[in-house]
Amino acid sequence: MTESPQKTLYIGSFIHSTSLTTLDHCANGVIGVDESGKIAFILRDASNETIPEDWESAKVIRQEGEGFFFPGFVDTHIHASQYPNAGVFGKSTLLDWLNTYTFPLESSFTDLKIASKIYNRVVARTISHGTTTACYYATIHVPATNLLSTICHSQGQRAFVGRVCMDSALSPDFYRDESAAASLQHTKDCITHIQSINPDYALITPIITPRFAPSCSVESMLSLGALHAETGIPVQTHISENLAECELVKAMFPTYKSYADVYHSTGLLTSKTILAHAIHLTPEERSLIKETDAKISHCPGSNTALTSGTAKIRDLLNDGLSIGLGTDVSGGCTPSILNQAREAVYVSRHVAMAPGQIEAKLSVAEALYLATRGGAKVVGLEGSIGGFEVGMDWDAQLVRFGQVGDTEGLGSESDGLVEIFGNESWEDKVAKWLYTGDDRNTHAVWVKGRLVHHREGWRA
Amino acid sequence: MTESPQKTLYIGSFIHSTSLTTLDHCANGVIGVDESGKIAFILRDASNETIPEDWESAKVIRQEGEGFFFPGFVDTHIHASQYPNAGVFGKSTLLDWLNTYTFPLESSFTDLKIASKIYNRVVARTISHGTTTACYYATIHVPATNLLSTICHSQGQRAFVGRVCMDSALSPDFYRDESAAASLQHTKDCITHIQSINPDYALITPIITPRFAPSCSVESMLSLGALHAETGIPVQTHISENLAECELVKAMFPTYKSYADVYHSTGLLTSKTILAHAIHLTPEERSLIKETDAKISHCPGSNTALTSGTAKIRDLLNDGLSIGLGTDVSGGCTPSILNQAREAVYVSRHVAMAPGQIEAKLSVAEALYLATRGGAKVVGLEGSIGGFEVGMDWDAQLVRFGQVGDTEGLGSESDGLVEIFGNESWEDKVAKWLYTGDDRNTHAVWVKGRLVHHREGWRA
Repeated sequence: MTESPQKTLYIGSFIHSTSLTTLDHCANGVIGVDESGKIAFILRDASNETIPEDWESAKVIRQEGEGFFFPGFVDTHIHASQYPNAGVFGKSTLLDWLNTYTFPLESSFTDLKIASKIYNRVVARTISHGTTTACYYATIHVPATNLLSTICHSQGQRAFVGRVCMDSALSPDFYRDESAAASLQHTKDCITHIQSINPDYALITPIITPRFAPSCSVESMLSLGALHAETGIPVQTHISENLAECELVKAMFPTYKSYADVYHSTGLLTSKTILAHAIHLTPEERSLIKETDAKISHCPGSNTALTSGTAKIRDLLNDGLSIGLGTDVSGGCTPSILNQAREAVYVSRHVAMAPGQIEAKLSVAEALYLATRGGAKVVGLEGSIGGFEVGMDWDAQLVRFGQVGDTEGLGSESDGLVEIFGNESWEDKVAKWLYTGDDRNTHAVWVKGRLVHHREGWRA
Repeated sequence: MTESPQKTLYIGSFIHSTSLTTLDHCANGVIGVDESGKIAFILRDASNETIPEDWESAKVIRQEGEGFFFPGFVDTHIHASQYPNAGVFGKSTLLDWLNTYTFPLESSFTDLKIASKIYNRVVARTISHGTTTACYYATIHVPATNLLSTICHSQGQRAFVGRVCMDSALSPDFYRDESAAASLQHTKDCITHIQSINPDYALITPIITPRFAPSCSVESMLSLGALHAETGIPVQTHISENLAECELVKAMFPTYKSYADVYHSTGLLTSKTILAHAIHLTPEERSLIKETDAKISHCPGSNTALTSGTAKIRDLLNDGLSIGLGTDVSGGCTPSILNQAREAVYVSRHVAMAPGQIEAKLSVAEALYLATRGGAKVVGLEGSIGGFEVGMDWDAQLVRFGQVGDTEGLGSESDGLVEIFGNESWEDKVAKWLYTGDDRNTHAVWVKGRLVHHREGWRA
């Protein structure tokens, strides 16, 4: 599946975001992707424009029937290690959820057999849902975290892989870094491993991962902040997911101005920082995040499931913040970013139900922007992924639908649930995909021009 | 697919609700279903109990591997005619949504070719999602409504089929009954058709369907109420879905005490009435509904999509009201009741986010109760469907999961998305099904003992 890319012409229908509110549809175009996996040229009209002469012997992949090529999704927040708990959370909220479900599972990753089974599965599954780039939290274990990096590399997914740092006494005895120095050293060990398989971080990038302030000593955060400053390696953490958590941070860090200030003061809040959740931010924190150009990962499904709250995405967009989507497995139940784009719309409806909040509603185009271009910006790759532009990498998925026939019965099961009756505009089809589509509609997935997944029966 | 049932032994794992809060799991039982499709006996322990002698030559259907038999779902509110619009609603709310999307589509059902294509599809699709009983709204057209009844009968789905009545000047010129008398007569014509295909209403039941108060004259509601009193045929309508709608009802019916009172005063609010949505009820209306024993169809997905509001299901349950789930296609985007059970949990989380509302959270067991036993009570069939009890009809689905293997790759695509790693309790598996399952997990569906759907490759 992951052989090197060859010069390829993608022919057919293409849809991608050109702004937060605008999807662009090219009904019959050609995109030429070179041997390095980059888009070399785009023709908007395959019938009347001629492909460059030196592309005449290129491989051809046609989008046929109902569907389109779409940029690959970016999952800006997912705990790979928690995947077996997806859907298992009862009526818990963040802090009891961590102790009841999460820490016991994560602590089992001392066993590389367990880690291998879970990591292989979650990476394969996210790819099959069209996720071409994922920001993973692993666990505290160096060998298992290195295995996750290796698995992403081997399956061909673009990934940011973070070894989780948690040295605070708040973490359970059975699952905690022994010291701030250990948090730092084990982080470095995981960076070294990624450099060994992937020297230029072309596919896999390490990411410094203090779990969240309550799990970390100030000493640990300071040393990880220094490592960030020294290496430029990005940072991911959580912020303001749950009100009890916010109170806890206030109590644990009384000398800091705010939760965001804890990260800022320890050197962890910069333009290369991804903050997950960001539900209960104060206006001052929003200003600080704007000033530092830190990024937001919106995790609507998880926020609903764990009763964490509703992130006010319209307000954050109006502030000019950069926002992408995160599945937050296993606070979130599904590894599908398409599903999270749908949840983002639904959560925005709940926000809009409050008096005077009607503008909060996200549109189909906006949700899909967050899933692609938005996520690309959050991970610092807006120049190379998230859309179809000359010079960008071919990180893409082929979306395909069946058509409702005139005969009885459902036709082929593998067509999935999106129902095309024949009168739909292309905007209607995109809306139907967002609201009723699933992995059955993602027929093929490419990362940097390499085919990393295809449905059974699909042939390039 | 719909041949007559033969005496059959279902062997394996069974799960059903025994109360609002309790799911019962029988790990290895036997259920004997007789030629009339009724459950004749239940053995809790297949290994140590013997089947009755006269059942030794019965057909055997085994549940094998990961999964269980589960009662069929009841969809207490679905507009069959709106199915092609599932997922197409933009940022609309109820009243503009009706005019922009709904009335134009429904008015096209003068064309029986269109009706046939759409109705065949939606019935097949709901069955494939495990819906064994559905309460359908059709359109105002008699021939198309009769076609829907015939299609349900032919596909073997238990259905309540309602010809939509709307004679008020508020309805558009191109889509309206010419008079109250026409509403009544056309309703009677559809009842007559159902009697002709199905004299004892064994599978298909007519249902009197005044669209909602704003669509109907008082004269029309009075005559439909009289028909209800005379025939005992059930009633379905909408109530308090949207605040603008509630204001409209106040303005249109100033002499009535409330929206609910409009129905009550016209003879339309009885124990055989299904009220969809019921979001913005006053305490007086809740009392009136309780007194009359009218039933509630909760449509969480639709209520979120159209920004209608959040129904306070915990409060309504505490009032002692009878509640089922409705997909409300195409206000709701999906014909899956499993999906709506999930949405019911999520919406309950949004209700629970308000201060002091933590008790609002619905559990997995509660959501699945609403999807089965709750719905059965809403449609007046609690004695015969919704659970596994001797004397009940075998309206059931076979739920099946794949297992995560130790090798790379995803295994068979047809296994669906529920991930069984091997350490899950049966409660965990049910939770995973609720939160991550879809039609791929519904391998076979029976109504009154007749097999009405099975996945490709499934063999009884």
